[in-house]
This record gives sequence, C-alpha cells and structure tokens, in this order.
Amino acid sequence: MMGQMMDQPLLISSIIRFAARHYGDSKIVSRRVEGDVHRYTVRECEARARRVANVLQAQGIAAGQRVGTLAWNGYRHLELYYGVSGSGAVLHTINPRLHPEQIAYIVNHAEDQLLFFDLTFLPLVAAIAPLCPTVKAFVLMSDRAHMPAEGSIPNLLCYEDLLAAASEEYDWPDFDERAAASLCYTSGTTGNPKGALYSHRSTVLHAYASAMPNALNVAGRDVVLPVVPMFHVNAWGLPYSVLLSGAKLVLPGAALDGKSLYDLFEAEGVTFSAGVPTVWLGLINYALQNRLAFSTFKRTVIGGAACPPAMMDTLIDHFGIEVIHAWGMTEMSPLGTTCGLLARHRDLPVAAQRAVLRKQGHAIFGVDMKIVDDDGNELPWDGHTFGHLLVKGPWIISRYFRDEGGDALQDGWFPTGDVATIDADGYMQITDRSKDVIKSGGEWIGSIDLENIAMAHPAVLQAACIGVRHPKWDERPVLVVVRRPEAEVTRAELLKFFDGKVAKFWMPDDVLFVDALPTGATGKIQKNRLREQFREYRLPGTDGAC
Amino acid sequence: MMGQMMDQPLLISSIIRFAARHYGDSKIVSRRVEGDVHRYTVRECEARARRVANVLQAQGIAAGQRVGTLAWNGYRHLELYYGVSGSGAVLHTINPRLHPEQIAYIVNHAEDQLLFFDLTFLPLVAAIAPLCPTVKAFVLMSDRAHMPAEGSIPNLLCYEDLLAAASEEYDWPDFDERAAASLCYTSGTTGNPKGALYSHRSTVLHAYASAMPNALNVAGRDVVLPVVPMFHVNAWGLPYSVLLSGAKLVLPGAALDGKSLYDLFEAEGVTFSAGVPTVWLGLINYALQNRLAFSTFKRTVIGGAACPPAMMDTLIDHFGIEVIHAWGMTEMSPLGTTCGLLARHRDLPVAAQRAVLRKQGHAIFGVDMKIVDDDGNELPWDGHTFGHLLVKGPWIISRYFRDEGGDALQDGWFPTGDVATIDADGYMQITDRSKDVIKSGGEWIGSIDLENIAMAHPAVLQAACIGVRHPKWDERPVLVVVRRPEAEVTRAELLKFFDGKVAKFWMPDDVLFVDALPTGATGKIQKNRLREQFREYRLPGTDGAC
Ligand SMILES: Nc1ncnc2c1ncn2[C@@H]1O[C@H](COP(=O)(O)OP(=O)(O)OP(=O)(O)O)[C@@H](O)[C@H]1O
Ligand SMILES: Nc1ncnc2c1ncn2[C@@H]1O[C@H](COP(=O)(O)OP(=O)(O)OP(=O)(O)O)[C@@H](O)[C@H]1O
Ligand SMILES: [Mg+2]
Ligand SMILES: [Mg+2]
Repeated sequence: MMGQMMDQPLLISSIIRFAARHYGDSKIVSRRVEGDVHRYTVRECEARARRVANVLQAQGIAAGQRVGTLAWNGYRHLELYYGVSGSGAVLHTINPRLHPEQIAYIVNHAEDQLLFFDLTFLPLVAAIAPLCPTVKAFVLMSDRAHMPAEGSIPNLLCYEDLLAAASEEYDWPDFDERAAASLCYTSGTTGNPKGALYSHRSTVLHAYASAMPNALNVAGRDVVLPVVPMFHVNAWGLPYSVLLSGAKLVLPGAALDGKSLYDLFEAEGVTFSAGVPTVWLGLINYALQNRLAFSTFKRTVIGGAACPPAMMDTLIDHFGIEVIHAWGMTEMSPLGTTCGLLARHRDLPVAAQRAVLRKQGHAIFGVDMKIVDDDGNELPWDGHTFGHLLVKGPWIISRYFRDEGGDALQDGWFPTGDVATIDADGYMQITDRSKDVIKSGGEWIGSIDLENIAMAHPAVLQAACIGVRHPKWDERPVLVVVRRPEAEVTRAELLKFFDGKVAKFWMPDDVLFVDALPTGATGKIQKNRLREQFREYRLPGTDGAC
Repeated sequence: MMGQMMDQPLLISSIIRFAARHYGDSKIVSRRVEGDVHRYTVRECEARARRVANVLQAQGIAAGQRVGTLAWNGYRHLELYYGVSGSGAVLHTINPRLHPEQIAYIVNHAEDQLLFFDLTFLPLVAAIAPLCPTVKAFVLMSDRAHMPAEGSIPNLLCYEDLLAAASEEYDWPDFDERAAASLCYTSGTTGNPKGALYSHRSTVLHAYASAMPNALNVAGRDVVLPVVPMFHVNAWGLPYSVLLSGAKLVLPGAALDGKSLYDLFEAEGVTFSAGVPTVWLGLINYALQNRLAFSTFKRTVIGGAACPPAMMDTLIDHFGIEVIHAWGMTEMSPLGTTCGLLARHRDLPVAAQRAVLRKQGHAIFGVDMKIVDDDGNELPWDGHTFGHLLVKGPWIISRYFRDEGGDALQDGWFPTGDVATIDADGYMQITDRSKDVIKSGGEWIGSIDLENIAMAHPAVLQAACIGVRHPKWDERPVLVVVRRPEAEVTRAELLKFFDGKVAKFWMPDDVLFVDALPTGATGKIQKNRLREQFREYRLPGTDGAC
C-alpha cells in the first residue's frame, strides 16, 4: 500500500523558488572582484537565475550537458548555481587553483559546453581556451565595461549583456529528482582528478541535513559568510542551506586575507562562517595582531582539514566564537560528520567538553560510517582502535563520473581514504589520511596528533608531520615546522615539548624548520609535495641505507 | 543524465537504525501509566522494536496492513512507532479522547488487524472490542502482572510476554520510500473522521525539515519532552526528529496536569517542549501559583491552536522561555509554518519583535502556501488582506484514506480550512478557521484577534469568540469567557477593555461568563459545541427574529 502524500520531486529549483517566495527580501551581499560591494535580494537573484536559464536555452544547452564555472564566491556564481542546475543542465564548478593543465583536463573530461569565469581568470582562460574544444563559448562574468579590448579568447561573451538580452519569463521545469545537478572534481593529489556527479535529490537532502542544529545549524536569524569556496564541493552546501533558511548571505569574492575578511565580517554583521583551518589562521592572526574583537561573529564551522586544538581554543576562549568541527569530502557532497556536545556533556568541566569538541564528531543523519581493518573486518567503537573509514548515504557517490578509477565502492560502502577512531558515544576522530599515515615498526603513528601538539607551542604557526624512511623501523615521524614571525624555538625545545604528551615510540625523530608549507588547491597542506621536498633528507644517525 | 549518488530509500527504519548506531546511549525516560518512571537507551529501544517486528510477523501482519494504537506518550508506543512502520506495516495511532463510537468507526474504516493499548484504556477497549471485527487480537501494553484477571476482551495478549517470546534478530527490510507508514484520522469536528496516510518518504522529509533551526530546532544537546500526544499526528514528528538528533527524550505518559509536568521537567532537566495552548495554561498557572521557576526549560513550541499573546508574554518575560509559534494540521504531517525572527529583526525594539513572533510564521522549507478569495484568485501578501489558506508540499496529503470526502485538492493545492493573512516578509497569520469566521454585514471578523485581546485582561483565563445570529448584520461576535479563579470582571469592564484595540465594528456585542469551555480530542476549544450550547441565546436588543 502506497502512502497518499503529494508527489513532488526534490529539485534545486525548489530551493530558490521557495526562498524567493517566502524570504524574498533576504539580502545577498557580494564583494566583487571588480572592487566594489554589490547588494540585492533573493527575489532579484531568482529573477536573474531565470534569465540565466533562458541564456542557456539560447546557447543550445540541453538537459544534462555540463556548464563550467571558474569563479569566486559571488552573486553571479550563485545565479549560475540555480540557473544551470534549475534548468536541468549540470553545473561544473572548477577549482581555479589547480594547475592550468589539470583545469583543461577537467574541462575536456566533463565536456563542458560553456565556461563562465570571473574577471580575475581572464589570463587563465586565455591560456586554456585553445585546449578546450568542447567549449562553445566563454562567458566573462562581468559587464560590458570590463570586457577586454581585443580578443585572445574565441567566442568571448559578456554575462551582463547576455542577461540583459534574455527574458525573465521562465518556468522552472519538473524532472526526475535523481537527475544530475552538479559536478565537482577532487583535487587529484594522486593521479588525475575524478568527478563526483551530484543529483538534485542528493543536493536537496544534503541541504536539509546540513542545515540541522546538529550539523551547520543554519537559521534565518544568521548572517552567513562562507569562506569555503563555491568552486569546491558547493561551498559545503551553504549556497543551498542559507537560501532555504532565509538568512542573509555575504559572499567575499577573491579577498580572503585577514584584513579583508575582518572588515567584511564587521561591516555586514556576520554571525556565522565556514572555512578551512588555513583561512582562520590568517583571520585570527590579523585580529590578534591588531587587538580587534568581533562584534557579531558567534559561530564557525572548521573543516576540510583537522582543526588544530590551539586554534579552537583561541577562537572559543579569546574571541568567544563557537567552533563546529566538521569532516567531509568531495565524494560526500561534502558533509559527513560535525561535532557538538550532547545533553549528557552539559555539566562536564570545560577541558572535558573541549576534548569532545576536538573530534570530527557524529555522522549527520543520512550518513552511516564504520571503521575496518586491512581485511575489511569492522573494528570496535572504543575511541582508540583506528582503521579505514568507510561511509554510505544518499549524498555519497556510488561511482566516479565516467567510472574513472574503476569500482568506487567496497561492498556498498565508500572508502574515504581516511584513518579514524570512533568512540562509544559515536564521535569519530580522524587520525590521518591513509596515504599520510606513518608506519613505524609495524604500528601506525597518526600524524594529526603530533601536529596538534606542535601547534600548541606558542612559537609554532604551522606544523606538518611526515614519515621518512628508516632502516630499522621502516618509517619514523619528522616534524616540519613554520615558526611564528619573530618567535624563536629550537629543535631540542620543541622535542622536549612532546615529553609526557605521547608514547615514546610516537616521539618525532627530528624537527625541520621551513618558511612555508606547500598548500594545495583547497588550502590544505600537501604532504605528498612535502615528502617530495625532503626526499634527500636523512634521519640523524642513519646513513640512508634502507 | 542521472546523478551518480548512492540510492537509498528514505525509510522510518533508517531513523532508528541511525539513532541506535550513532546515538545508542541517548536516554529515553517514560512516566508509565503503571505509575513509575522507566529509563532505557535508544539502543535498547531499537532492539525491542525489532522484537515488535517479529511479533507482527508471528501474528501474520503483512506489509501495508494497519496496526492500531490507543496509547499515551511512552517507550512502548515508541517501539510500536518503529517496529510497525519499520517492518512495512502501517501504524494507525488513534486518539483515545474521541467518542468510543468514533473510535470503533475509525478502527473499522482502517481495518486494523491488531490493536495495542495502554492499561488506562482497558474499559474503553472492552467497550469497543465487540464492534471491531477486523481486529484479530488486542494487545495490552504492559506486563503479565498488569493483565486483567478474567477476560471481557477476546484475544487479549500481553505486550511484554509477546516481546519476551520474540527473537531480537531482525533485518529492517528495504522497500519503496513511498509506501504507507502511518495513518492518523482528523478529529472530525464536522462529519466523520478522515484518514491521512503518511508515507516513509513524507515522514523522513518532515523529520528533516521540522528539526531545522527555523522550525523546531531539535539538537543533540536538548532534553525534549513532547506534551503533544503520540496518538495525534505523530506528536508533531518529535518521535522521529528527537531520535535522529541524539537528544534525550522524556515521555510524560498520561499525567499532563501542571504539577506532574513541572516535576518531570525539573527531574529530567527538560530544555525543550511542545504542546497546545491549553496544556501550557495548566503548567504556567501551576508554576505561577506556587512561585516556581524552571531551571533548565528554555524553549517551547506552541501550536495546534493560536497561542494567546498574553501566554507568550508570560512565558518569555516571566519565565525566560523562548516561544516558537507553530501552525499545522493532521493533513500536513503536521508542520506547515513556524515563527522566528530574521537577521533584520535583530535591532528592533522588543514590542516590535513580539508582534512578529505572535504570527504563525514562515512556511518550512518544502511547504508552499497561498491565500485566495472565494473564487480562487490569489490574494496579496500585505499582512492585512485575508483569504483561504492553501498549501502544498511533499508531506501534505494528496487525498484522504479511501478517498473519503471526495477530491481533497483544489488545482493541486490542499485547502486548509483556515483563513489567514501573509505579510510581505512571508509571515503567515491565522485569522480564523473558515467555519468559525464571523460574517457580519458582509465583512469577516476574525475571532482569534478578539480572543487574544480578552485573554490579555488579567481576570480572564480563557476566551472564545463565536458568531451569533443578528437580524440586521447576519452575525455578530459574542465573547464566552472563563474567569481566573478568585478574579472578578464584569461584562461592561471587559467590553471597555476593547476600546481603542479594535475597530468599532469588531467590538463584541456581548460577554457570557461560563465555568469551562468545551475542548475536543486534541485539547482545542470546540466552537461548534459552544455554538450549539448557545443556540437559544439572543443578543441584547434583538428578539431573535432572524
Ligand atoms: N575535519 C577534518 N579533519 C581532518 N581531515 C579532514 C577534515 N575534513 C576533511 N578532511 C580531509 O579532507 C579530505 C577530503 O578532501 P576534499 O575532498 O575536500 O579534497 P580533495 O579534492 O579530495 O583533495 P585530495 O585530492 O587531496 O583528496 C578528507 O578525506 C580528509 O582527509
Ligand atoms: N498556531 C495555530 N494557530 C491557529 N490555529 C491553529 C494553529 N495550529 C493549528 N491550528 C488549527 O488547527 C487545525 C488543525 O487541527 P488538527 O489537524 O490538529 O486537528 P483536527 O483533528 O483536524 O481537528 P478538526 O477536525 O477540528 O479539524 C488547523 O487547521 C488550524 O485551524
Ligand atoms: Mg580526496
Ligand atoms: Mg482538521
């Protein structure tokens, strides 16, 4: 017997239609790459998204075809989010920080028909245009005044001209909620980037789940500034969850340095933000150095890489900002877990609460997870046994676009490539990425733990721990450290700092000071490049014969 | 082109499986009708729900067949919520406050195969059993010690015996997410009760949507006590949304008087609750009379009937409890709108904020609404034009069970039978039920407004406004009032209290004092019974010739 409820597909267009109708006056504020600040309402955004849909139709884009974007967080990018997916085409967001060759690879692999891009990326697009035969036109996301004088790019169109010429009349079409909606490629730190092809259903379910209080907790009273880029995994779904909740949305454009962000937070009354740890490093240091406080900023999500406990403590204790530690990945839309306290933690001492909050947290409803050993046997949830983390759920890929890399699943579960523990209360904690884990004398050493300890030292700005070859132990951990400006700390002092904090066996064998750590396209430290960089390095007391 | 995400049906079993796995230690505390307090964990609840599923199988219940319950809010009822729906059968919750004849009608109409009931309802079940031929067995939700000595009920079984005999081994089956999951009948204030047949999909989507911060805002750190009954519209979905969020759940059983509730709130550290206004009246008066404060209670949802502004003010200003005004109905699973402030209201004066919070609020994401005139033309969202409220969304019925009452929709929209305004910010406000609206001289007078003013008078405990026949104006409003114990107020004083608060035309023509107002099966004031009661009444200065 079937239920007798209305049958409505879960479509991305339902989000913008709902928002325009019920929260039409909610503000969207964008710092433009052109330099100024642009403001309008959700209602205007929806009307322009309808124009985008008509532009696509005029350009001959059929349902399911891919439309690429190379753009920062801004209102025009948002219009494409809704205009492209809402009309049945597939929004392909491209990470502009990737190597141009990789970008061309991705555009070709996706067979993008159109490529929309921000002014900043004019040289980049000029460079890749000849390599991208599938792209019928390149659309500069600006107005006539900003169009380049003469054309090194063939078929260059002007976004504002196209929109002005298009009709606002458009009925968002109904179709199968399992239809493809958007496409995002992993950064491809190993091998070629692989695509995750999200559906309307997965996107809307992820929007519901991620807005919930246990997850990102997005409310209509919030002013939300996503620092996480709309060019990577849909900015953790915030372009969807913020609009459906009626919150004010602030889009920072390309200026992600501490000062630019701080000024925007204060000017727009931002209450809630989200970003990777490296971004917070910049903002926190700017505020600390200039003795600034935040007047409205109350809550932030940190994810994409482990949030160092020292950073969490500064945000909470010094700035009074609640930190939600989140874990996810491209293949997961991206949210998998978020960390928050439960009723039973209410009366714990602060230090004990903080220990909970440092973990990556609980699966959000819809996601299931487990940890397994090398043979696939499920491991206990005891908070110390670690194993390969596998996940499943309606916003997790079942395979990569065009089956790249073969079967993506193991027995119906997606292997995350992360190594983690899960405790009896269901809190998951990432120990390491499996490719970064240090295997010493047959045992695993988690690099994140060692990095977190180093970063708690007042002289340390950033730290990365890598395994280096050892003749007897196979691998031993070595710390690569960036000191804070003006701060001093020696190798011996730093090693001493680890005393009593880890088992002797986990103690790093060496400390190497560097000026900067290599970061990748998503702002994370690239351990593979670091290992490459120290390929010739030999541990003290070894001759490298291994 | 289809997306490439995992395909998982949205099933009610996925909620309890998720909860048991990820929040297995979350507590469920129940005040039993047997008198004591019962405690266990979500993990134990899920294990017993699996036993329930095996019991159903042993009793020959097939997928889609209906299983009735006559029960308070308690852990056994919760086990049936998951055991029945999770196994593919349909949970039919029955309102025990209905007239026994209506209950028998409903059981027959639904063709319930089994009827589970709480100890309190033994006499009721004995009375209706002979009228319910489809019911193969009646299951008393208690243990052997509480079974009646000799049987006036044929095929009477003992819940705890059945569970003890059943295996815990059970794999929750996968099936179409559109399959029927549960069934609830409207109270049928006019005509026979009609059934709303919810699906797994609608229930899970409603659980996601209703847990969101803009709606009920259910978080893992909460301790939730639903006063709203599990026997009517699934207690506003809280048995689902609380479990998926890992919050502690407190179920009050049959003792819903002020003192019993207050004691339970304090003993269990309740932070969040939900109920109809009449229940809060009891709790608030108990606390005020005994000069008690709440130590953990911070937030409550009030819906099912308009929350009187005076009640909202007392809760917020005196007790420091945030009030979320909610509107919904059986046919909507039930949630349609909830009220909260937006970012732009942050700096408004308290009185202006309060004026916003009194409305029934915004549609929750998934629901669309509109107001129309008698000819079905859409009316403007200006905050003062009122019209018939129509809704649509994935957790709203497309028809009644067995097509009772004919076509349930108008052009794809469900007509709610309510009259409302919607303002430019998207806030909806209920003026009246269309069957209660007072039509005077060709214009509509909203009874809720008049009642709210009366209830703001310190001597008034409850007020209901009904239309009575008038020879010239067709109908005129008359107030029926229950005074507070020991309080005095005259007809003239009360009418004077309206001066300047409403247009002269809206001024009630009379005030009638009564000892109590008739309330229906869901705790709401029954205006049809009130009108019946005052059928012989004539307005001052009229002779009844109309
Ligand atoms: N809170 C966190 N703590 C630790 N690691 C995290 C956290 N959040 C994300 N990560 C890491 O980021 C990975 C997901 O990265 P993402 O999908 O955003 O980038 P990517 O493009 O896949 O990069 P790569 O190609 O390097 O995998 C996770 O598998 C995990 O290793
Ligand atoms: N916040 C509210 N303010 C005003 N009215 C409300 C509110 N919430 C619910 N209602 C009223 O309750 C109705 C829904 O009642 P519900 O479905 O719970 O009971 P019912 O069994 O249908 O009763 P009936 O048979 O009398 O309609 C709505 O249509 C509306 O009139
Ligand atoms: Mg990856
Ligand atoms: Mg009704």
